[in-house]
Amino acid sequence: MTWASIDLNADLGEGFGHWRLTDDEQLLSVVTSANVACGFHAGDAVTMRRVCRLAAERSVRIGAQVSYRDLAGFGRRSMDVPAEELAAEIAYQIGALEIFARAAGSRVSYVKPHGALYNRVVHDEEQAAAVVDGVLLSGERLPVLGLPGSKLHTMAEKAGLPTITEAFADRAYTADGRLVPRGQDGAVLTDPATVVERSVSMARFGVITARCGRPVPVRARSLCLHGDTPGAVSLARRVRRQLETAGVRVEPFV
Amino acid sequence: MTWASIDLNADLGEGFGHWRLTDDEQLLSVVTSANVACGFHAGDAVTMRRVCRLAAERSVRIGAQVSYRDLAGFGRRSMDVPAEELAAEIAYQIGALEIFARAAGSRVSYVKPHGALYNRVVHDEEQAAAVVDGVLLSGERLPVLGLPGSKLHTMAEKAGLPTITEAFADRAYTADGRLVPRGQDGAVLTDPATVVERSVSMARFGVITARCGRPVPVRARSLCLHGDTPGAVSLARRVRRQLETAGVRVEPFV
Amino acid sequence: MTWASIDLNADLGEGFGHWRLTDDEQLLSVVTSANVACGFHAGDAVTMRRVCRLAAERSVRIGAQVSYRDLAGFGRRSMDVPAEELAAEIAYQIGALEIFARAAGSRVSYVKPHGALYNRVVHDEEQAAAVVDGVLLSGERLPVLGLPGSKLHTMAEKAGLPTITEAFADRAYTADGRLVPRGQDGAVLTDPATVVERSVSMARFGVITARCGRPVPVRARSLCLHGDTPGAVSLARRVRRQLETAGVRVEPFV
Amino acid sequence: MTWASIDLNADLGEGFGHWRLTDDEQLLSVVTSANVACGFHAGDAVTMRRVCRLAAERSVRIGAQVSYRDLAGFGRRSMDVPAEELAAEIAYQIGALEIFARAAGSRVSYVKPHGALYNRVVHDEEQAAAVVDGVLLSGERLPVLGLPGSKLHTMAEKAGLPTITEAFADRAYTADGRLVPRGQDGAVLTDPATVVERSVSMARFGVITARCGRPVPVRARSLCLHGDTPGAVSLARRVRRQLETAGVRVEPFV
Repeated sequence: MTWASIDLNADLGEGFGHWRLTDDEQLLSVVTSANVACGFHAGDAVTMRRVCRLAAERSVRIGAQVSYRDLAGFGRRSMDVPAEELAAEIAYQIGALEIFARAAGSRVSYVKPHGALYNRVVHDEEQAAAVVDGVLLSGERLPVLGLPGSKLHTMAEKAGLPTITEAFADRAYTADGRLVPRGQDGAVLTDPATVVERSVSMARFGVITARCGRPVPVRARSLCLHGDTPGAVSLARRVRRQLETAGVRVEPFV
Repeated sequence: MTWASIDLNADLGEGFGHWRLTDDEQLLSVVTSANVACGFHAGDAVTMRRVCRLAAERSVRIGAQVSYRDLAGFGRRSMDVPAEELAAEIAYQIGALEIFARAAGSRVSYVKPHGALYNRVVHDEEQAAAVVDGVLLSGERLPVLGLPGSKLHTMAEKAGLPTITEAFADRAYTADGRLVPRGQDGAVLTDPATVVERSVSMARFGVITARCGRPVPVRARSLCLHGDTPGAVSLARRVRRQLETAGVRVEPFV
Repeated sequence: MTWASIDLNADLGEGFGHWRLTDDEQLLSVVTSANVACGFHAGDAVTMRRVCRLAAERSVRIGAQVSYRDLAGFGRRSMDVPAEELAAEIAYQIGALEIFARAAGSRVSYVKPHGALYNRVVHDEEQAAAVVDGVLLSGERLPVLGLPGSKLHTMAEKAGLPTITEAFADRAYTADGRLVPRGQDGAVLTDPATVVERSVSMARFGVITARCGRPVPVRARSLCLHGDTPGAVSLARRVRRQLETAGVRVEPFV
Repeated sequence: MTWASIDLNADLGEGFGHWRLTDDEQLLSVVTSANVACGFHAGDAVTMRRVCRLAAERSVRIGAQVSYRDLAGFGRRSMDVPAEELAAEIAYQIGALEIFARAAGSRVSYVKPHGALYNRVVHDEEQAAAVVDGVLLSGERLPVLGLPGSKLHTMAEKAGLPTITEAFADRAYTADGRLVPRGQDGAVLTDPATVVERSVSMARFGVITARCGRPVPVRARSLCLHGDTPGAVSLARRVRRQLETAGVRVEPFV
């Protein structure tokens, strides 16, 4: 399976108040979809407004990067949030972002859970359903960005929401096409040439070399680029350039 | 000057998480406009959703009760927030509430600052302008509820936003029609009969008896009822009943 | 097994800013140990100071009621906090309370986890060890209040900390002496006479009637009274009076 | 007036959770006093613990850098906090830091207000007194670091607390020895050679060249180095080296 086109997404606006994390301006010249932090794990109102403006100017799609309410833990600590609370908190974040997206002449085009919530809704059906309920409160059929085979996607499909699959060119995969958990040796790939090569392989052929050395199919409508590592911007640029050189159209999924 | 009709507004949804403050359900059967806390001084996402639902069911208008970001101080501590931050934070709160209002089949119909921000924008032109900028980010010409003669209203009018004046039947007024500051003797009136009588006088004749005993004109399209005092609900009911008995139509201003 | 004496503990100071939850002053005239909220799930600095003052005046022991950092969830949502963070956060809370306890002429005499953390350290060895590490950072061998048989107590004993067992007169027990989980039918007992009777049975004989009707031994050096239910204060008073009538000395465990 | 010795202080531990701001480890090899953020404007428990450990290893004094409760504004927004709340919040922060200082084998040796609070207590007597009250709650006669002539120092002296004056080698001064307010042209000096030269002049002779070109006396027992600007660490190193070359003993004030 090959894709004529691929979307590039990255987490943006992940500072808070005085603190900065990502080079939003530079990354927005590379990606086609911006996962904008909405204030629960990161992202203050000024930053949200600015990132939405910059994204709209560059025709980059704006997505709500929704999270547990956990500034101190950057949303990386799994939490047993009851479904009703989680759904309402997801909606709250989408609504807050929506006003800045609209003010910039754009709109919230999709939703992507962040950090611990992202990992949890791969397998936790109740929280996955709560995220979907939160999205539904928006009254829009917003696509949900996540891992193929995740409960999040199962529940989104049940609810009639579009699902967008994503893959990670800088993460190792198992032979059955799943991410090698962070913390295991070699889970994260740092060699730029390798990451670039894997991006092209995923985008053109839907295939990635698993940890065991065998090619495995990886369905991905979007590639996630990391913006918070040293050299992130230049690596992102290289990935995009190489994709275009290889004949892949880099464009938003919506 | 007499009004054929009067709006009754009250602050609602001012709990947070496990904490409750007002009897939202009962108050929503009395008022015509609900100033819903948006999470900055009070108000969590579950409560916002619930209050919006109840308000929509009763055809009570939903307003964004916007505040400084100050849960610990309940928004009652004046803060030197730079204009750009304040505008963005106001918009953030309106956006968050908007999603719940729409999900309930209604919409955010107006904006009212809370607590220290309410008092500050009476005279602080920069913060008043920032609040107005925040409202404008919504893309809607939302009416701004506040004190007659406040900088908030001046700046709102300049920006082309409708302004709604409000008065307080349970607060003493000076001879020139201003509120006696809290903290001064007799600033807050607690006798129910007096509060009811003043409500009717304001609504029918636009007149209130000042502290000095003289009648003074008080322009008010809306009366603010307090929901967080003992007996608040029954007093609110009495006010409404008496207004209706006196031939005043109790109805939302929009 | 009978106890010559029993301690009565309750959660206090669980408001935050403008919000109140428990009648601290009344409860402090009944209990012998005050679990004071330290600002992470509830408890602001003014309240902590006031409760410490009142407790010291009444010779009530002051304990640090430590929690996950979760104001929005009142500490009732289990969180995957890494051990190093959890230990440091526990210490932070103890230190903050200590200054108010000392200013009142008392000191922090014990530590009790709150809410979801309390439940989690019954079985989660890593978090239990982290709580113990946090307590050790205080440099004092502070007793740790918790359920008999909990990992918290196992890890505390390993570290050389005293452990204090507690029981709940208003909770149903299984035949093997464990709490019936909240959410199950009959898990919480509300009949005052029953609660009083069970308190005396626990304190005098170390025995409670399990859900199945059979007596089971329940080791408890302290009984936990709930302060946030209607009638909490009068029930607490009744429990204390009845214990004293039955010849049980009501006194702190340290 | 010359000082045989000078203290060098800097703000440290000003990250929060995932966010970092200063190179704490490098700065701790230069300064003699560490103003450690206590969690209200910055500073999480893990960071506080780590900075205290590093400071104790290097015999750097640990000071409580206390602030308004304002993570979103980094403590840079002046707030009308009532005196009782402010005093309790100051104490809370000192207590929290104290546990980590003691665990590291050191102790909290002084208190320095941060940001907007620092500026406000130069002239606001009520808040200055509240900060002093908060310090007194610690039960220790902790020195208070601040500007000469500030209300903070006046109130501290009244209460019997030692006061430590500080100066800024990278800030312009007026002819009467006061700081040129940030925001005015030339308020902040960035040329490293100038900053180094002014440090030596202050430390050796208690004199600085005012904006008008005239020498003015500046009393300072401590020089404040900024750690959050580019090149901050190397500039700090140069200042210290040059002070030592000039025969000034660089040593803590307590």
